[in-house]
Amino acid sequence: MSRFDIVMHYSYSAIMFIGAVTFFIWSQKPRGVSKGEYIIAMIIPLWSGTAYLSIALGQGVLQEPDQTIYFARYLDWVVTTPLLLLALALTAMFYEPKKDKALIGGLITADVFMILTGLIADFSNDTLKYVWYGLGIAALLIVLYIIWYPLRKMAAKSGDGLKRHYRRMAAYLTSFWVLYPTAWVLGPSGVGAFEEVMEITAFIVLPILSKLGFTLLDLKGLRELRT
Amino acid sequence: MSRFDIVMHYSYSAIMFIGAVTFFIWSQKPRGVSKGEYIIAMIIPLWSGTAYLSIALGQGVLQEPDQTIYFARYLDWVVTTPLLLLALALTAMFYEPKKDKALIGGLITADVFMILTGLIADFSNDTLKYVWYGLGIAALLIVLYIIWYPLRKMAAKSGDGLKRHYRRMAAYLTSFWVLYPTAWVLGPSGVGAFEEVMEITAFIVLPILSKLGFTLLDLKGLRELRT
Amino acid sequence: MSRFDIVMHYSYSAIMFIGAVTFFIWSQKPRGVSKGEYIIAMIIPLWSGTAYLSIALGQGVLQEPDQTIYFARYLDWVVTTPLLLLALALTAMFYEPKKDKALIGGLITADVFMILTGLIADFSNDTLKYVWYGLGIAALLIVLYIIWYPLRKMAAKSGDGLKRHYRRMAAYLTSFWVLYPTAWVLGPSGVGAFEEVMEITAFIVLPILSKLGFTLLDLKGLRELRT
Ligand SMILES: CC1=C(/C=C/C(C)=C/C=C/C(C)=C/C=O)C(C)(C)CCC1
Ligand SMILES: CC1=C(/C=C/C(C)=C/C=C/C(C)=C/C=O)C(C)(C)CCC1
Ligand SMILES: CC1=C(/C=C/C(C)=C/C=C/C(C)=C/C=O)C(C)(C)CCC1
Repeated sequence: MSRFDIVMHYSYSAIMFIGAVTFFIWSQKPRGVSKGEYIIAMIIPLWSGTAYLSIALGQGVLQEPDQTIYFARYLDWVVTTPLLLLALALTAMFYEPKKDKALIGGLITADVFMILTGLIADFSNDTLKYVWYGLGIAALLIVLYIIWYPLRKMAAKSGDGLKRHYRRMAAYLTSFWVLYPTAWVLGPSGVGAFEEVMEITAFIVLPILSKLGFTLLDLKGLRELRT
Repeated sequence: MSRFDIVMHYSYSAIMFIGAVTFFIWSQKPRGVSKGEYIIAMIIPLWSGTAYLSIALGQGVLQEPDQTIYFARYLDWVVTTPLLLLALALTAMFYEPKKDKALIGGLITADVFMILTGLIADFSNDTLKYVWYGLGIAALLIVLYIIWYPLRKMAAKSGDGLKRHYRRMAAYLTSFWVLYPTAWVLGPSGVGAFEEVMEITAFIVLPILSKLGFTLLDLKGLRELRT
Repeated sequence: MSRFDIVMHYSYSAIMFIGAVTFFIWSQKPRGVSKGEYIIAMIIPLWSGTAYLSIALGQGVLQEPDQTIYFARYLDWVVTTPLLLLALALTAMFYEPKKDKALIGGLITADVFMILTGLIADFSNDTLKYVWYGLGIAALLIVLYIIWYPLRKMAAKSGDGLKRHYRRMAAYLTSFWVLYPTAWVLGPSGVGAFEEVMEITAFIVLPILSKLGFTLLDLKGLRELRT
């Protein structure tokens, strides 16, 4: 890895750490948002920051002859994407006293499946790569279906404030999540249409927006609902 | 792998996929059966079909000098067997408003332990193989104990309809599950008394019956209970 | 491994097995303690005993040129330490009808993170080793914080009996858990100030006290609360 990559990954870890501290401070004045949401908000950046730190230290990367595999990214995603979806689902069920565990379970299973197919695709060649990639896309469609149908309906039942907030968060999440498979397939894991430098920038900037940005807006919206 | 094996594994994946679609269609008219049961019923064949697809593609297999290890089978089992047991446990607790999480947790832990010992046994030699195999059998006995004692008692408390349905499902599951360690020990993973062709047939036919067959009968029974 | 090590590991497995049987017998007369606590109490020694058995069999160890890595220990810890913390948290919430899942989730995530950093540290060299070790220590501090602040407050709300029992159990757990990173860093995984024989003795004696000892005292205390 170049100096540029290493510096980028360290900076990412530092930013995530600052994010976690911010959410800890917020959690001291919860304003009607449950402790669970703050705990999720803190775990996401701490886990992700550590995964990127392992890349910066040179341990979370595999140098293959014709490709560099950043497997620590999958280790990051396999924990943080379920938590992001859990946060979104809890937002949809904000006023329900009993959360719908079956739906959350289905959502998370589809998501973990998606990340695993990405990992397998990264270790596969040629056509095989795209078989796995295609299965991952199918899983992403299931995730988006659950977000936009059953979950949206739940949020809509709970009054206008939550309805609007949920719709905004779901749109935010969707617009970033579709960029991941795009960056993946254009970058060195896929057809290699873009340089490694651009790919790395994408995988630094995107997660900051889709982790810290998402969580920040979500918590802010929920905190304001009660006022 | 021979052409025969590959075709078998592709067909299996196709059948599982059709199964998942069937359960999705059923779920649109739930007839008193909770969404959770349908979600479980869909995840099982989708996950298993993907695992067998990876075998067909030549990625889920390890060619050792003196043995072929189908490790993707364990990846299949480690997710689908807990879900099958969860489905059975939820059947037993069909009318209870609060599910007994401790019992479900114990059941699933014993089951995952059983699958892991099988995986380790497959990678071990001689006597060691049978130490692990024996521990797996012990875990299977614990699973069967939980199914036939505490769970059966719960189902029996909830009226005759459920009692009869539960007993039938438990018997169905038990009779197939004991065939797995039998096929395993007779096949190339064990003493090699049967040919690889027979072993593969066993591991194609058995799971269709113990996954799709089981789930189909279970859902059908539960749907009829309410009428 | 020397004969001494092997005998030690077999004895450990035997002791754990006896412990599990003891808890099974206790569970037949639950005296107001929930089934869940007994199931946890049985899983811990069974899982741990199996992990140590794999070391005795020579499979749970990796012989590197300049170090022996007992990776089966991490496999043990990654399951048993969350269960020990779960047992402690359930003790704190003994009288609460609804357990606080968010807090338990946070506690377990920090703990699993701590064990993973230990595993990575064991496979790293020089400075890197201590980066991971340091992150593990940070996670341990979070675990201890949760045990001594939010959980202790919960226990204190539930009357004097539970308050005293919880304080004693938390102190017991804390005093043993801080010895693990100490033994790790002094032993061959760390600076190597102590011989392998001493390290093994530590990792045989410590877990007996922090698993069987802990669970025994915890269950005993809870059983007496009701009288
Ligand atoms: C569909 C698909 C993918 C999607 C990945 C996504 C959606 C990742 C999201 C990550 C986030 C949100 C991280 C943290 O912020 C892969 C695995 C790239 C490749 C396989 C197909
Ligand atoms: C006891 C035992 C085994 C049992 C396996 C079973 C019971 C598998 C069930 C699989 C199912 C039901 C799959 C999906 O339908 C092994 C691992 C073969 C070997 C170790 C001992
Ligand atoms: C902080 C820390 C550690 C702590 C380990 C602990 C606290 C283990 C506890 C184990 C128990 C209680 C086992 C079962 O009885 C490691 C991983 C050694 C090294 C990294 C830093």
